[in-house]
Amino acid sequence: MFKKIITPRISETNITRHIGHTVIPVWLEEGYEEIIRLFSHDLAEPSLITVNMNMDFLNEIFFGKDVEILTSVKKVGISSFVLHQEVYQDRKLCVKASTTLVHFDYSTHKPGPIPKAVRDILKERESVST
Amino acid sequence: MFKKIITPRISETNITRHIGHTVIPVWLEEGYEEIIRLFSHDLAEPSLITVNMNMDFLNEIFFGKDVEILTSVKKVGISSFVLHQEVYQDRKLCVKASTTLVHFDYSTHKPGPIPKAVRDILKERESVST
Amino acid sequence: MFKKIITPRISETNITRHIGHTVIPVWLEEGYEEIIRLFSHDLAEPSLITVNMNMDFLNEIFFGKDVEILTSVKKVGISSFVLHQEVYQDRKLCVKASTTLVHFDYSTHKPGPIPKAVRDILKERESVST
Amino acid sequence: MFKKIITPRISETNITRHIGHTVIPVWLEEGYEEIIRLFSHDLAEPSLITVNMNMDFLNEIFFGKDVEILTSVKKVGISSFVLHQEVYQDRKLCVKASTTLVHFDYSTHKPGPIPKAVRDILKERESVST
Repeated sequence: MFKKIITPRISETNITRHIGHTVIPVWLEEGYEEIIRLFSHDLAEPSLITVNMNMDFLNEIFFGKDVEILTSVKKVGISSFVLHQEVYQDRKLCVKASTTLVHFDYSTHKPGPIPKAVRDILKERESVST
Repeated sequence: MFKKIITPRISETNITRHIGHTVIPVWLEEGYEEIIRLFSHDLAEPSLITVNMNMDFLNEIFFGKDVEILTSVKKVGISSFVLHQEVYQDRKLCVKASTTLVHFDYSTHKPGPIPKAVRDILKERESVST
Repeated sequence: MFKKIITPRISETNITRHIGHTVIPVWLEEGYEEIIRLFSHDLAEPSLITVNMNMDFLNEIFFGKDVEILTSVKKVGISSFVLHQEVYQDRKLCVKASTTLVHFDYSTHKPGPIPKAVRDILKERESVST
Repeated sequence: MFKKIITPRISETNITRHIGHTVIPVWLEEGYEEIIRLFSHDLAEPSLITVNMNMDFLNEIFFGKDVEILTSVKKVGISSFVLHQEVYQDRKLCVKASTTLVHFDYSTHKPGPIPKAVRDILKERESVST
């Protein structure tokens, strides 16, 4: 599991005076940044693409208190894997998200198998039950 | 159905040289802005909250060409409704999204029934088949 | 002079219920996008960098009404030029900005002279008095 | 002086593969967030407005390494004050900025004198030479 602390920014609040839901994917992406790095020796040539993202917004998130992003690996396939993410503020579960990423080869413009070394790391991080 | 044209911004591209997926919810929100207005006489007191968002990212979106956001009403419940949205660039379907919104009463902090007048407008926009 | 209309987005409002000042540089960049294109055959290899930006925030900008960005060329040097920009909402001047851009050669990592053809276009757009 | 560490986000890079200049004001605002709090018991009723911002972009900022924002108070007037800010990455000065803020009374919609207690704190943080 990966853990990341994020401090909500003034520019991330909106007219409703809480954090807008459009900010959440930005935070979730920060939550799995370490996984992106596993795939990308050179970040200018990333080899991961996001193919699906499903978010449940359960509670409002406010400016003024840090949030915690927990990221675990839910399922590892041949060329894709699914992440489960949870966003907490004040010990309250605010967002639950599921993101499907594909290992993509930009040179052939086709998905390719996840390298064994990376696969092993993802498998280790696979949560037993989420 | 609602239609909205958006011009991708330089600041919406990222290191991979296309539009980052975190930008899409911002555009989708613009796509249903007219619906938000139906619920909110005063935008400082909006009465709509997003409870779920599911996005399929089907094709890369590039800087330099406008995108078209099509928004239709998929299902209208007592206090909630579901939108179906599609993002096109160059006549190619790039994103397919489903968003569930709830009519929320910030004074009681509980969901409330969608007003009849608004309900009728949403019903009219309901797509026969999506 | 270049003119661009922008519709403020919900995600661009903040907790103070108006448009945050951090959004303005994003809009100003859209205002001179045509100039960026003059310099960049290939947008993945832009050859313009921003070296200074000075903004006066004169009036609040609100969600719900379009803004107009007027961009004129103030001064053209050998390898740099200065833009003068004004942001209006409801015929009220809200922001006045001055941006200095340099024609940059990423291969040598040094500034280079503005090509004559581009220089002529910039000169034409040069405002007599601002 | 205030010090803040910020980790550049993927969504803050752009097509040029470094951090876009439009991101800088967002970071600078985080840099003086503590000062905003001095003025705002209730953040929904902030009493500080930004009236001018001047930024020199001296060096490119890249994804992958933290940046440090240093904020000092340059000048304290009756109802306004000026901040001097510096953004460093890898010990290199990348941005130098000057921001003028005004203590604003939203009820009268006029500037008001900076409260003595806040003024004293700002004076303490005033840099001797910048």
